[in-house]
Amino acid sequence: MINHISSLRVSYSETDQMGVVYHGNYAKYFELGRTEWLRSLGVTYKDMEANGIMLPVISLNLKFLKSAFYDEVITVETILKKKPVVKIEFDYVIRNENKDILCTGNTVLAFIDMKTNKPMKCPDDILDRIGI
Amino acid sequence: MINHISSLRVSYSETDQMGVVYHGNYAKYFELGRTEWLRSLGVTYKDMEANGIMLPVISLNLKFLKSAFYDEVITVETILKKKPVVKIEFDYVIRNENKDILCTGNTVLAFIDMKTNKPMKCPDDILDRIGI
Amino acid sequence: MINHISSLRVSYSETDQMGVVYHGNYAKYFELGRTEWLRSLGVTYKDMEANGIMLPVISLNLKFLKSAFYDEVITVETILKKKPVVKIEFDYVIRNENKDILCTGNTVLAFIDMKTNKPMKCPDDILDRIGI
Amino acid sequence: MINHISSLRVSYSETDQMGVVYHGNYAKYFELGRTEWLRSLGVTYKDMEANGIMLPVISLNLKFLKSAFYDEVITVETILKKKPVVKIEFDYVIRNENKDILCTGNTVLAFIDMKTNKPMKCPDDILDRIGI
Repeated sequence: MINHISSLRVSYSETDQMGVVYHGNYAKYFELGRTEWLRSLGVTYKDMEANGIMLPVISLNLKFLKSAFYDEVITVETILKKKPVVKIEFDYVIRNENKDILCTGNTVLAFIDMKTNKPMKCPDDILDRIGI
Repeated sequence: MINHISSLRVSYSETDQMGVVYHGNYAKYFELGRTEWLRSLGVTYKDMEANGIMLPVISLNLKFLKSAFYDEVITVETILKKKPVVKIEFDYVIRNENKDILCTGNTVLAFIDMKTNKPMKCPDDILDRIGI
Repeated sequence: MINHISSLRVSYSETDQMGVVYHGNYAKYFELGRTEWLRSLGVTYKDMEANGIMLPVISLNLKFLKSAFYDEVITVETILKKKPVVKIEFDYVIRNENKDILCTGNTVLAFIDMKTNKPMKCPDDILDRIGI
Repeated sequence: MINHISSLRVSYSETDQMGVVYHGNYAKYFELGRTEWLRSLGVTYKDMEANGIMLPVISLNLKFLKSAFYDEVITVETILKKKPVVKIEFDYVIRNENKDILCTGNTVLAFIDMKTNKPMKCPDDILDRIGI
């Protein structure tokens, strides 16, 4: 329940005139990774928001090693870094079809109670499902 | 008060691997055009939403004639097509620095009362400012 | 070989502060539709470009009927409108999981020889695969 | 010649359903910052590419402190971190109209010779203009 792998196909809209994926688009790929990680636990971020919990990104770090190209199927490995308390931290590894690492990264997100707009603890339900 | 010209510089993120602006990005350029048209009347769309009026786009049409390139300053001419009633319609002409027409288009937006989620008439305040 | 249905899940990055998919993002959904239509014929747009044929969009029309929401799985039906000659025209219908029509649209793309930057006829290979 | 301040107005397309700028869009704001920093030296990135020099981003780090809202004018302060050799490093500070810091960040870009696709030194012309 710690790691999860998603995949996606690079669209034309995501390329830039260098002929590769524009670096800013990797933030969306990480979003896909952690959303699907959560879904694999049986939780959707959509439901979390409906239940009054928001998870804004508070830091985002990326290292770009190789380019991703149009129409490639790339994978996003999402790794829960440690047991979440008031924040949840993920590492990411993005690879192409040859298993070359294209990009590594990390995000920290904060659990926010939408009623008070204050930080809150990771819901027990999620901790139970993670099982750590 | 019928026509307004805005300008913007094409960013790298907006290009694709054809080396030109990705066609889907013109929707944002039209958004800029009508937002600045409205601001030139002394109204902001931000305030309209704060006052409970939403203006979703209900149709969008574009013709692409020439390409827009990275770092070019392009102009968006926004033309109010007719007196707004429950909808507001704009034509657009996008030109490069040589005055070549790159793209023409049209959008129709509907005035929606955010409380009822129902169509409503164009606010009198806006009609007064348009002066037609 | 005339119709094709693709699906995608709406990402957070595609929503706007109305809480729905930003209208400009539908251009990307149509791109997905026609790319997968082509792939279903056994052709990739990537290979077409590698073989010197470019397919820029020359017109794009959209009608927005209902909103698409975050995390919904939506389908893009792509319909070849007629036998392509120097242009290729598609209609699109986007539906949500309840089969409500969210958006309809149309694109016309031109076959361009990348060496001469001039219009060219639809390659015979594609006509054969379409079979009309 | 070390610091430069650019400004931009947040568009509707950049917001997400949290009602704030989607975190992935800050990469574009940093792009604006360093492009205008370079322009303020009398150099354009467009000309650099035309002269066979490419500057891909090799790392991107962001910390998000406060939200940016639709229609706000925000400023991007771009700070050259040190004398560029084969890489060029910038810090960024993004502020709203109240001078609140919304986001800080850092990018490292590499000078690449487009003919050989190999790293190269920062062109003398740029070093001269920086004057450090």
